[in-house]
Amino acid sequence: MVKRISIGLLGMGVVGGGVARIISEKSDLLERQIGAKLDLRGVLVRNQNKPRSFQLPEDMFVDSPQSILEDSNVDIVVELMGGEEPALSYILNAVSNGKHVVTANKEVMAKHGPAIFAAARKRDVRVLFEASVAGGTPIISPLMRDLVSNDVKSIKAIINGTTNYILTRMANEQADYDEVLQEAQALGYAESDPTNDVQGIDASYKLAILSTLAFRAQVKNTDVHYEGITRLTAQDFLYSDELGYSIKLLAISTRVDNQVQARVHPALIDKSQMLAKVDGVLNAVEVETDLTDSVMFYGPGAGEMPTTSAVVADIVNIGRNVAGNAAFLDPVRLSDQITVQPMSELISEYYLRLEAKDQPGVLAKIASVLAGNGISISSFLQKGSNQQKGTAEMVIMTHEAREEAIQNALDSIGNLDVVANIGNMIRVVN
Amino acid sequence: MVKRISIGLLGMGVVGGGVARIISEKSDLLERQIGAKLDLRGVLVRNQNKPRSFQLPEDMFVDSPQSILEDSNVDIVVELMGGEEPALSYILNAVSNGKHVVTANKEVMAKHGPAIFAAARKRDVRVLFEASVAGGTPIISPLMRDLVSNDVKSIKAIINGTTNYILTRMANEQADYDEVLQEAQALGYAESDPTNDVQGIDASYKLAILSTLAFRAQVKNTDVHYEGITRLTAQDFLYSDELGYSIKLLAISTRVDNQVQARVHPALIDKSQMLAKVDGVLNAVEVETDLTDSVMFYGPGAGEMPTTSAVVADIVNIGRNVAGNAAFLDPVRLSDQITVQPMSELISEYYLRLEAKDQPGVLAKIASVLAGNGISISSFLQKGSNQQKGTAEMVIMTHEAREEAIQNALDSIGNLDVVANIGNMIRVVN
Repeated sequence: MVKRISIGLLGMGVVGGGVARIISEKSDLLERQIGAKLDLRGVLVRNQNKPRSFQLPEDMFVDSPQSILEDSNVDIVVELMGGEEPALSYILNAVSNGKHVVTANKEVMAKHGPAIFAAARKRDVRVLFEASVAGGTPIISPLMRDLVSNDVKSIKAIINGTTNYILTRMANEQADYDEVLQEAQALGYAESDPTNDVQGIDASYKLAILSTLAFRAQVKNTDVHYEGITRLTAQDFLYSDELGYSIKLLAISTRVDNQVQARVHPALIDKSQMLAKVDGVLNAVEVETDLTDSVMFYGPGAGEMPTTSAVVADIVNIGRNVAGNAAFLDPVRLSDQITVQPMSELISEYYLRLEAKDQPGVLAKIASVLAGNGISISSFLQKGSNQQKGTAEMVIMTHEAREEAIQNALDSIGNLDVVANIGNMIRVVN
Repeated sequence: MVKRISIGLLGMGVVGGGVARIISEKSDLLERQIGAKLDLRGVLVRNQNKPRSFQLPEDMFVDSPQSILEDSNVDIVVELMGGEEPALSYILNAVSNGKHVVTANKEVMAKHGPAIFAAARKRDVRVLFEASVAGGTPIISPLMRDLVSNDVKSIKAIINGTTNYILTRMANEQADYDEVLQEAQALGYAESDPTNDVQGIDASYKLAILSTLAFRAQVKNTDVHYEGITRLTAQDFLYSDELGYSIKLLAISTRVDNQVQARVHPALIDKSQMLAKVDGVLNAVEVETDLTDSVMFYGPGAGEMPTTSAVVADIVNIGRNVAGNAAFLDPVRLSDQITVQPMSELISEYYLRLEAKDQPGVLAKIASVLAGNGISISSFLQKGSNQQKGTAEMVIMTHEAREEAIQNALDSIGNLDVVANIGNMIRVVN
């Protein structure tokens, strides 16, 4: 008789529907790959009558989490509800009941990953979470397994498809943020409340997960400095382009000795870099290490079927061990101690866009403030002037400077009577 | 007492030296990741007195393979000799003695992979081979684990660093092949006998390995059609560039139903494609599937430390299971039956460069031969003329046509009295 592995599904949204569909439509392939048949045993949903893209027998739906979490026949709980609670409680509950867990939940993994790993180790079950970062693009498993002999120096990633879509359209159409956001919402690429995406919060969760694995030490979401894309204008794209840069919302995490610096913000990145060429909703994670120099993983970061691909891969990899009665050893081994370097200590080059009075001596005043903060200018562009207001737009590129110095300089520049407005400050990433 | 896992190394060239070095220099990290200490027990070398980049105690070297293959204390044999024999015999010998094997040997894996997997399954040991394709860039493990729920439609890859380096320089410098090859040899990027690389043989081995895993069915190196880069000229790069294409040596394998078509040849690829942007010695593998659309793995394809990274990852992943007394389940599960589609049935667009008499009616004659073979022209460029010879260079781009028709047409065109010479035929890859 063919062995069966029972799956309990928590949540039946877009990805849940995809997982149920693939377990059914690819049952032969999955059975050959696992050595056992996957058996969807129950699906927790809030509303049993909601229309769904994939039809399941009605008796499959349950409305009490206990019917899955306490069902002794369920081998693997697949959590696809999203959000911190009750997802976290359900995951911990499943683990303490001796069930393996597969989750796509970036918020839970970013905030509670190491606690979950510890609980799972105690019960000798596994929690896999490939779908939590970069959707269908493999990155979690490569960090845990394939790059295991490397010491990671940095991660540079585009891990939010919504913002990358918006920035790509702003770049291609010289359009402003608000306009493109509305179109993205109309097309379903941005949510009606886009805060989590456009403010960099979603990317900060994902960067915390990647950094924890890469640096083998807990990096919490609260350790990640984040800024969103809402201040970017069509001008920023125009001037950056002229200077040879693209603008991307980058998630960057850098390790120097036992300090890590993790940040999400819009960045100017040289057009010749591969990351600068990642357009639309696609994601890419570039990992710089001591042994491999740099490797990049590129592909879809979201979507029903790509995310389903990652979830089902985790199910198969756990399933193989369940089917083979072999222990699934913990691939996450956190052993390092690191501290977080404050953002004020960042060293970077900067792009500054200012609106200032169109008169002699203005640049001298601004340059003098910068110099007073130890910041030197690498290039300067004077742009279109507003004759009515008597102002001109200026773009200043700095050499490497300390974030704290830039912030102090911007405070002082904002107070100069010749400066009408500080348009934007964008960090340059090399 | 800390558990020890004993490693026997076959070969101590560039990568062997790197593996020995990392096992020593990163012993603490590796012990934490594995849960046991790696113990290098013996190294088979041909010449014990050869100077090496990494020093080992003299009694570590052995000159008889039996001292490693039959040492009951050796847990993992690491084969880094290269070439078909005696590497294949040693691998099979190690397996039949119940040892796990890690190898970087693309030739052995391309020619004998499935036979080796079967032997390993019988003895319940594993043979891992991440380093055999794309060096430090993870691709074998992602295909076996992370993309396991996908049906792969195609692979498009740049998996030979030497040729990609040569082609990148030819493109950037408008230089001819012979000149760049000599410089590449002087710099150590090409071997003194470059045949395996420049004729596409090396890439054909790697494509056979990738195709076998992607399509879950044996694809042998002899199933791969291959052509090299030696006929490319500076003109081909010039004209391709004008038409919006880069030229890359692509390894392509496509599945339609139960037929696979696998080929390595220079190809015109639209400059907007990510693969077109892979320059220098770097490698990239793009995998198109039913669920993820397209994912790409990009990074170093060779070199001491990148390849060492992949070899040591395989050692760690086997080592974790040895240390945990847990069965390491076979990640390679070949279950499909496929047949190979002959190259003559390929459907492609083509670039043709011809030298023909510079006189009226020539294009009509050539177009008529093409039309007679069912091939229609999509664009035509007349290029620089050689007044002394009375000839001009012509570039013809075709719509999709059958390979057999193109080959027949080229035979006939070559026989036209108005055609002095068929410069090149290059397939276009979309």
